[in-house]
Amino acid sequence: MPAELPLADAAAVAERCDAARNRQALLQAAAELIAAHGPDALTMDALAGAAGVGKGTVFRRFGSRSGLLLALVDRDEHLEQQAFMFGPPPLGPGVPATERLAAFGAARIDFVLRHGSVLRAAESAPVQRFRNRARAVHHAHVANLLRESGAPGDRVLLTDSLLATLDSALLMHQHEDRGYDRDRLVAAWTTLVRAVTAAPPPPVPRGR
Amino acid sequence: MPAELPLADAAAVAERCDAARNRQALLQAAAELIAAHGPDALTMDALAGAAGVGKGTVFRRFGSRSGLLLALVDRDEHLEQQAFMFGPPPLGPGVPATERLAAFGAARIDFVLRHGSVLRAAESAPVQRFRNRARAVHHAHVANLLRESGAPGDRVLLTDSLLATLDSALLMHQHEDRGYDRDRLVAAWTTLVRAVTAAPPPPVPRGR
Repeated sequence: MPAELPLADAAAVAERCDAARNRQALLQAAAELIAAHGPDALTMDALAGAAGVGKGTVFRRFGSRSGLLLALVDRDEHLEQQAFMFGPPPLGPGVPATERLAAFGAARIDFVLRHGSVLRAAESAPVQRFRNRARAVHHAHVANLLRESGAPGDRVLLTDSLLATLDSALLMHQHEDRGYDRDRLVAAWTTLVRAVTAAPPPPVPRGR
Repeated sequence: MPAELPLADAAAVAERCDAARNRQALLQAAAELIAAHGPDALTMDALAGAAGVGKGTVFRRFGSRSGLLLALVDRDEHLEQQAFMFGPPPLGPGVPATERLAAFGAARIDFVLRHGSVLRAAESAPVQRFRNRARAVHHAHVANLLRESGAPGDRVLLTDSLLATLDSALLMHQHEDRGYDRDRLVAAWTTLVRAVTAAPPPPVPRGR
């Protein structure tokens, strides 16, 4: 039986629970604002008004409008990470690396097409595109699969090239501005993965 | 012997010449400001002060700070386009398409490493990355070379993937944040080009 919490800690725990509940309530209100009026209508002011809290509270929870928008897709981002790291194949382990790479790209394309307008509204300065935690997880995952597949060449830079193909602004441009549908995007990704993972022809055996 | 220009037209021509001269003088002053203090120091105000003109003149000539920064690399961009369209091989015509693709990427990598800080300062909103004239020229050029090389798959989307590898913010991140040198970037590009242009194995002849 766990020791009783000292009073100060119990208060701290209650406070953390309150904070988490408030955060969830704010995210729920933000999702409803976006569903009703689109991501451009989601400002810190509008959210404070809709949730009946002060604007300072919204800033304390999310830091910035960009932080708030990313918090909205964070749960899905986390579920997707669980799926490609630990879930069933072909996204998770159990099939050849080339198949997992193909499935990873298809999952990212679906993610971006589902959350594209929020991702686009949240996108920050150019250099920041390459300095976020989700991208670091994707980079490690793709680099591992490339190594496992035996892809030739500089796999670190090849990983950057593959991730650049899955960049959300690029996918949104292809889908919305140029009208390419999801299946065409997935097919092109799959062709690219096959091309870069094709092992070099085995060396000609000598002396036989 | 050409007919004498009517007075009104002569005045108009003189005015256009003045405008071109003023533009050149402003670009020269901007280049000097950047050389002395870096691209962040180049504001419309600072340029007006350095060139001894009103701020309104600077805005009329370039539209925005981003427009001014892009005007600075425009001449080099134009020279590079001439080189890959009409210049000597391997950048220009006269060698196999795969070699020209490799040379195109090397030239872009050099361009970005030379002008990176200006390109980065000029970069606009995410969607705008895919809607500028220089990118359209690059897209047409790479798509043509892919077709000529017989690259399999969806060449339009493959072109997007190749250009994404040459994105200036990505190259700057690789070079400055991660310290990869020019030769490593060029080698990775070349490997990628070889992988995606590799023709599929010829069909096995039947009945022989």
